[in-house]
Amino acid sequence: MTKIVQTAVVGVTGYAGAELARLLLHHPRLKGKPPVFAGRVDSKDLARGGVPLSEIHPQLRANNGSGDWKLEPFSWELLAGRGVDVLFLATPHEQSREWVPEALKRGLRVIDLSGAWRLNEAAHRAVYAFADEGSEIAVATQAQAVYGMPELYRGQIGGARLIANPGCYATSVILPLKPLVAAGLVDLDRGIVADAKSGVSGAGKAPTAKTHFMSAADNLSAYGVFAHRHTGELLEQIGVSASGIVFTPHLLPIPRGILSTIYVHFRKLQTHESVAQVYREFFAGSPMVRLYEKSLPQIQYSVRTNYADIGFQLDAGGRRAVIVSCLDNLLKGAAGQAVQNLNVMLGWPESEGLA
Amino acid sequence: MTKIVQTAVVGVTGYAGAELARLLLHHPRLKGKPPVFAGRVDSKDLARGGVPLSEIHPQLRANNGSGDWKLEPFSWELLAGRGVDVLFLATPHEQSREWVPEALKRGLRVIDLSGAWRLNEAAHRAVYAFADEGSEIAVATQAQAVYGMPELYRGQIGGARLIANPGCYATSVILPLKPLVAAGLVDLDRGIVADAKSGVSGAGKAPTAKTHFMSAADNLSAYGVFAHRHTGELLEQIGVSASGIVFTPHLLPIPRGILSTIYVHFRKLQTHESVAQVYREFFAGSPMVRLYEKSLPQIQYSVRTNYADIGFQLDAGGRRAVIVSCLDNLLKGAAGQAVQNLNVMLGWPESEGLA
Amino acid sequence: MTKIVQTAVVGVTGYAGAELARLLLHHPRLKGKPPVFAGRVDSKDLARGGVPLSEIHPQLRANNGSGDWKLEPFSWELLAGRGVDVLFLATPHEQSREWVPEALKRGLRVIDLSGAWRLNEAAHRAVYAFADEGSEIAVATQAQAVYGMPELYRGQIGGARLIANPGCYATSVILPLKPLVAAGLVDLDRGIVADAKSGVSGAGKAPTAKTHFMSAADNLSAYGVFAHRHTGELLEQIGVSASGIVFTPHLLPIPRGILSTIYVHFRKLQTHESVAQVYREFFAGSPMVRLYEKSLPQIQYSVRTNYADIGFQLDAGGRRAVIVSCLDNLLKGAAGQAVQNLNVMLGWPESEGLA
Amino acid sequence: MTKIVQTAVVGVTGYAGAELARLLLHHPRLKGKPPVFAGRVDSKDLARGGVPLSEIHPQLRANNGSGDWKLEPFSWELLAGRGVDVLFLATPHEQSREWVPEALKRGLRVIDLSGAWRLNEAAHRAVYAFADEGSEIAVATQAQAVYGMPELYRGQIGGARLIANPGCYATSVILPLKPLVAAGLVDLDRGIVADAKSGVSGAGKAPTAKTHFMSAADNLSAYGVFAHRHTGELLEQIGVSASGIVFTPHLLPIPRGILSTIYVHFRKLQTHESVAQVYREFFAGSPMVRLYEKSLPQIQYSVRTNYADIGFQLDAGGRRAVIVSCLDNLLKGAAGQAVQNLNVMLGWPESEGLA
Repeated sequence: MTKIVQTAVVGVTGYAGAELARLLLHHPRLKGKPPVFAGRVDSKDLARGGVPLSEIHPQLRANNGSGDWKLEPFSWELLAGRGVDVLFLATPHEQSREWVPEALKRGLRVIDLSGAWRLNEAAHRAVYAFADEGSEIAVATQAQAVYGMPELYRGQIGGARLIANPGCYATSVILPLKPLVAAGLVDLDRGIVADAKSGVSGAGKAPTAKTHFMSAADNLSAYGVFAHRHTGELLEQIGVSASGIVFTPHLLPIPRGILSTIYVHFRKLQTHESVAQVYREFFAGSPMVRLYEKSLPQIQYSVRTNYADIGFQLDAGGRRAVIVSCLDNLLKGAAGQAVQNLNVMLGWPESEGLA
Repeated sequence: MTKIVQTAVVGVTGYAGAELARLLLHHPRLKGKPPVFAGRVDSKDLARGGVPLSEIHPQLRANNGSGDWKLEPFSWELLAGRGVDVLFLATPHEQSREWVPEALKRGLRVIDLSGAWRLNEAAHRAVYAFADEGSEIAVATQAQAVYGMPELYRGQIGGARLIANPGCYATSVILPLKPLVAAGLVDLDRGIVADAKSGVSGAGKAPTAKTHFMSAADNLSAYGVFAHRHTGELLEQIGVSASGIVFTPHLLPIPRGILSTIYVHFRKLQTHESVAQVYREFFAGSPMVRLYEKSLPQIQYSVRTNYADIGFQLDAGGRRAVIVSCLDNLLKGAAGQAVQNLNVMLGWPESEGLA
Repeated sequence: MTKIVQTAVVGVTGYAGAELARLLLHHPRLKGKPPVFAGRVDSKDLARGGVPLSEIHPQLRANNGSGDWKLEPFSWELLAGRGVDVLFLATPHEQSREWVPEALKRGLRVIDLSGAWRLNEAAHRAVYAFADEGSEIAVATQAQAVYGMPELYRGQIGGARLIANPGCYATSVILPLKPLVAAGLVDLDRGIVADAKSGVSGAGKAPTAKTHFMSAADNLSAYGVFAHRHTGELLEQIGVSASGIVFTPHLLPIPRGILSTIYVHFRKLQTHESVAQVYREFFAGSPMVRLYEKSLPQIQYSVRTNYADIGFQLDAGGRRAVIVSCLDNLLKGAAGQAVQNLNVMLGWPESEGLA
Repeated sequence: MTKIVQTAVVGVTGYAGAELARLLLHHPRLKGKPPVFAGRVDSKDLARGGVPLSEIHPQLRANNGSGDWKLEPFSWELLAGRGVDVLFLATPHEQSREWVPEALKRGLRVIDLSGAWRLNEAAHRAVYAFADEGSEIAVATQAQAVYGMPELYRGQIGGARLIANPGCYATSVILPLKPLVAAGLVDLDRGIVADAKSGVSGAGKAPTAKTHFMSAADNLSAYGVFAHRHTGELLEQIGVSASGIVFTPHLLPIPRGILSTIYVHFRKLQTHESVAQVYREFFAGSPMVRLYEKSLPQIQYSVRTNYADIGFQLDAGGRRAVIVSCLDNLLKGAAGQAVQNLNVMLGWPESEGLA
């Protein structure tokens, strides 16, 4: 007889947090055990018993007949008192950096959606300027972290106590590239181009000049050229040097979804079938990847699903390919992948609660 | 021990059809009994065993490891051979008009999403110009039809053999108005205004000048002024005369969702609480209506749910109200309400498979 | 020989300010005399000679070969030194309230785009809570203000020293209603409904939760129900009491444009022609109004023009009409109307620089 | 004293045609000589004197007081009778292929917006499958054609009788690449990537599944991978082989605008200044190109202008660059560039009527 797992979510107020709340509230294995939603709640909110989640995310509102979920003030005692087993952090990386060691010490398993524990090389972490960089505790914590991409690390995720959930752009570029690079198909000397485009939810919930409707709508802009902080993840996970790939993010005038167009040269002549074969083998046991063999994926097909969609086309000469990958930045790029990691961690079917 | 119901869907190629397919494929009471998807399929498609649904609706594509659903050539023999109990028609009204009598004769229960059987008064049906208008069979069929709005006809839907699933605009106007009119609050002599705005999926899947991205995007237009064919439903269900209400639809530059802004005069002075009380009582047993008592609903909150959201505000004098209602035109306005009707018809929990 | 007029604009950083800058820079009568752009500029900007307008509004950037326009630090001395004749204020109403009396004292003619001087009745002004309400100077200034809608006050605008440029929603509702009310066609006892929808630029340039792309896109929401501060303008200019009209603004997911759908009852039976005749006569000398006699205007047709577009449809009984009016909230609803007022004020052709 | 030029436009019904009409109607050098608008007009239209342009493009509607422009039935006699000097063809390439030789024979100067006469190499023309490919008249006509990109062929355009107006994507990729390739900076062996994204107007006015609002909105898709017919223009004008560049177009969910992100390797180390210097020199006399030296262009900045905006960023090593180019596909990518060509052809200031 299995004990029902108790989850908690910190950082439910953002876009990824809302998706995480929705997924966990409907997860079949968590029926009857709603997550604890914890965060900053002031005394006035406390007086009325916490903040209803539906005030923050009206789309999570239950109908008039039923109850509603509350955001409660965070404390380690709250988590202990409620018997929390697995802690999801959808918090800024600074906060994750601080809380994860404490959570591990208290015996919690942690799935961290921030960039706090994704990077092995100090040079790549430099962009985050972590206050505890190089400290004993940070080094020890990083050593426990497993990069939470089940398609690459399924085995290690099972026993992991700390999952570093990948970045949305990183997922969108690593998944289509890793199989080809790992199989030795790609001519790394010729350089890879990853031209990625993301919906506005990727830019966060804070109202800024960039996320103002008037700036984002009817527009497209490139940003973070040669400087986006997801680059370190790409390099480490794909196994290329900084000079071997250019990654350029763009802001699309849509709410959600990422499409990455990736350009590679092959070391030897390939056929559509030889490339497809590499993908099929790599993703054989991966229920959340869909290969497009006769057409190319589009953002619309993957949005509001946890699928990573991958398609490609070779030039007539068989020496170059354009690969197109699509996913929902809030699901396979964040909350969905986090739940996928939960499933793998606990030995549940990988796509449970994600269909 | 209950027999598992076998459903069939005709007309799965449109937008409402896609939603219906998705809902039925995931409905907990239909597990292991996927619907029969039937329609026009030519001989070439037959040679390969029918058309995969995912060719028509790529977002319905299962991952690479699993099977896929097929569109099969429609015949009454197909339905009989597969033991179909309940037939969903997401077909043009002319086709529903023709097929429903035959389906009833063959003992099927029918949920028809078209406008074929919604109207009791011949004058209101005139706009459809049915070929069989007034025929014996048409009269007999209409007599069996129940207007499929559970919030109004829950009892009759239970025993019904033919459900006339309401129009999307009609649902969005009837639900907020019916309680107030039924309770005698509204001064019908002063006239009601229902100013409704719908996303482009409401205009259908056929590419037309009107549905071209360049015509619909960055635009808003009124259409069907004093002439929209959902008007008959409004009049019959709310119980007002044609001179008592003006209904104006508009085309919004968004994929889905309807917001109706409704203006009423009260016969007597009301308070926010007195109006709220009328709504609370009317919708007491209705799990798919959400009342907004402190704010107004927005299209974003109800899209991709089966909820009808209703809020309102009174003027300082207590004699006028602006009522705002929101719903997803493809769900509560079409496929979701159809599944809700299925649930009520078969005695299942009304919101099963719709959360 | 006419002296060339020198204009100045304060408040060029907002959306209406950008349009005003563009219009004045290209106005044929102001060739060779670009406006003085004044505002808050700090000492660092001064050191480099002011802020280039193209830093604030990149779309105003001239090509690489030519010069650029600068934002200079505001002072009355700057205006005097540059020989400014006409001052445009695209400033918050509090600032306009403070600066207009001073500008008038200094002999400037002022076109104020804010709500500071539009309202004659103190009760309507209450919503603005002006600090100087009722003061001698405020009363005297208000007495000089002409409501800047040339279609209604062309004669008075000619000699005016202070133009109170109308609100965008107000323009969109007053223009289609005034002719019918003035001609005595409308049954005011039955009540008028004005259901207005505006693009996001109407909500201003400040990044807020409301103007975040994620809140505004794929959405529609009503706001300011029974409480929008443009209501006072409607009442005063149309000549109806507060109980005679309901005005409800909505936020559309588009950058710019307003469509107002207006519902009236007629006192006597009308025909399409009788109504059209009233409009034709009223707008006979008005080059910036386009009547649609065979179809209805759409937002797309009027956006990026200074036209107010008006169309209508009668019900079969001839006792009710739905009137649709469209305009660009930043042009006919703000900067374009301001330039139209400049033209009338200076005796130039009314549509000069606005085609 | 200069004779006023008489222009004619065939193919005014499309999106580029509408922009062309607008530009020519407001062109200062064509005042008082509106273009002849010619096309297929049936006898019913003739009976009422042709089709008003405003029926096809309501945004071109003049106000109620003034006249309107008509679409007249095309014939060579019409053009001769009206004294047409310059003929604009915004027609399908098949029609341009047929009409241009006749027009030249009749002494007209032609600016053709189609792909009919842009390509010098038969291999590149193969994608169009011209019926007259290789014929004497076709060869002779092609020999007269000048590729209508003033920034590259200003001198030849002056005396040209036939201008082949470039493709929108081609303009967006050639302008930023030509200066760098011509100066020998680019390592062609490493390969260039041009990842281009265009608004939906680029897909034409015909309603199709692809241009349906539901397909285009909230989406992004790649198409024409390794197969887009603008590729030939790129190769010929930039001077690279097919294996030296990959060009991938994408469909953006916006009405208009193209952003191309272009990836190059340099042969030798470069600095931001060395690259900027190359651009400055190349575009020294080009009023319709704007260089962005401190930031990157965005689609919003160039839409509704005739500018091509170019910016770039180098990696830390100085061996790679990401170049971003933006333009309005209907203006600098079509109608605006056509008018720019008219200006150059007739010796007028290059940006006349385009500001």
